[in-house]
Amino acid sequence: MTVRALVFDVFGTVVDWRSGVAREVHRLLGGRVDAPEFADDWRGRYGPSMDRVRTGRQPWTPLDALHRASLDELLADRGLDDVDEPPRAELVLAWHRLDPWPDVLPGLTRLHRAHVLAPLSNGNIALMVDLARRSELPWDAVLGAEVVRRYKPDPAVYDSAPALLGLTPEQVCMVAAHLEDLAAARARGLWTAYVHRPDEFGGRRTPPADDPGAEWSVASMVDFADALGC
Amino acid sequence: MTVRALVFDVFGTVVDWRSGVAREVHRLLGGRVDAPEFADDWRGRYGPSMDRVRTGRQPWTPLDALHRASLDELLADRGLDDVDEPPRAELVLAWHRLDPWPDVLPGLTRLHRAHVLAPLSNGNIALMVDLARRSELPWDAVLGAEVVRRYKPDPAVYDSAPALLGLTPEQVCMVAAHLEDLAAARARGLWTAYVHRPDEFGGRRTPPADDPGAEWSVASMVDFADALGC
Repeated sequence: MTVRALVFDVFGTVVDWRSGVAREVHRLLGGRVDAPEFADDWRGRYGPSMDRVRTGRQPWTPLDALHRASLDELLADRGLDDVDEPPRAELVLAWHRLDPWPDVLPGLTRLHRAHVLAPLSNGNIALMVDLARRSELPWDAVLGAEVVRRYKPDPAVYDSAPALLGLTPEQVCMVAAHLEDLAAARARGLWTAYVHRPDEFGGRRTPPADDPGAEWSVASMVDFADALGC
Repeated sequence: MTVRALVFDVFGTVVDWRSGVAREVHRLLGGRVDAPEFADDWRGRYGPSMDRVRTGRQPWTPLDALHRASLDELLADRGLDDVDEPPRAELVLAWHRLDPWPDVLPGLTRLHRAHVLAPLSNGNIALMVDLARRSELPWDAVLGAEVVRRYKPDPAVYDSAPALLGLTPEQVCMVAAHLEDLAAARARGLWTAYVHRPDEFGGRRTPPADDPGAEWSVASMVDFADALGC
């Protein structure tokens, strides 16, 4: 077995969405909301918003537009209809201004020497580009939902990674902090690596320490580079 | 006007396909062919092979597969049917092993500071990734024909660049050494920059020194960085 490419979930696995979104919420809405709780509520609407696309009730819509729609709902639910257009547009960009976990850059830099690296996220390409430029993430390409116009866990997203990289599924490993993402990748023949991110939900949920189904379970990208001998 | 993203033609504009393909042809076929002439003939079949896809006579086929089919024709036309499978597969990879013109890395490094950079080539993603890894080209994403399953100059390819980068056409500039590529990009509302590559065809064709229709005509990527004040 030779893994040639590593493809990554991004929100939670590569970047810390909760503290980054809370920081921007606090900056733009100040004391009007509890910023971490607002971030959690916004993220909670992520799955249901994609489900409308997954089930065909809504045509293909990039994640930025889903984030905007769920933000508008969220503000309305809290009686914050008076928030103007400019801060709403800025708030959607909070998802473009997230920082990676501290192990990500040192780990990816080592992994990049011998492997093709690409995000395989539900985030749209513009969002992935902004995150990468902010932190100099060493992606070789941006793959994921927008390229195939399907949201994970649609099999087409996992199939697209080897197909577009000119590889077989057994030459590609999906890296994620979420069991369901990895299970869906394995079902399409990809190798899987689980990264334990205990702080993703700020202590509100406790992710398992490992994924018994995954080929690798690691505590950081640096540990993953060690495991692959990079 | 603020150009936020620069998208690049690759074969001829960024990399010197003729000397790189000739080098690999010489390595794999030795004295059996005139390597630069073989490279010219192979490249000459590029347009007609894409035309079969453009006109719908052939379903979507990535460039690697078109290169393989035209190589098989080329060898048959020269009575070289005895060339085995392994060198044929290696020859197709000649297109993944091309070097950039000398100005490309210094120019792109400067342009990258203030602009999103991406190839917008007819080459498939795996090919673009191999070229970028070989020379450390600072792409932020890989756009182009394979993402939309259409070959330039199909308008959908040019439209996809601003759409996938979250920009308007007026925020994107197409950079190419070929007038027809730039004319097609302008027709979709993109800015255009012409790069003069007098050596692309090894003196067999003489490209014009500038494109009167383009916003910029430059002699190198370094000159383009100067022109944009990067």
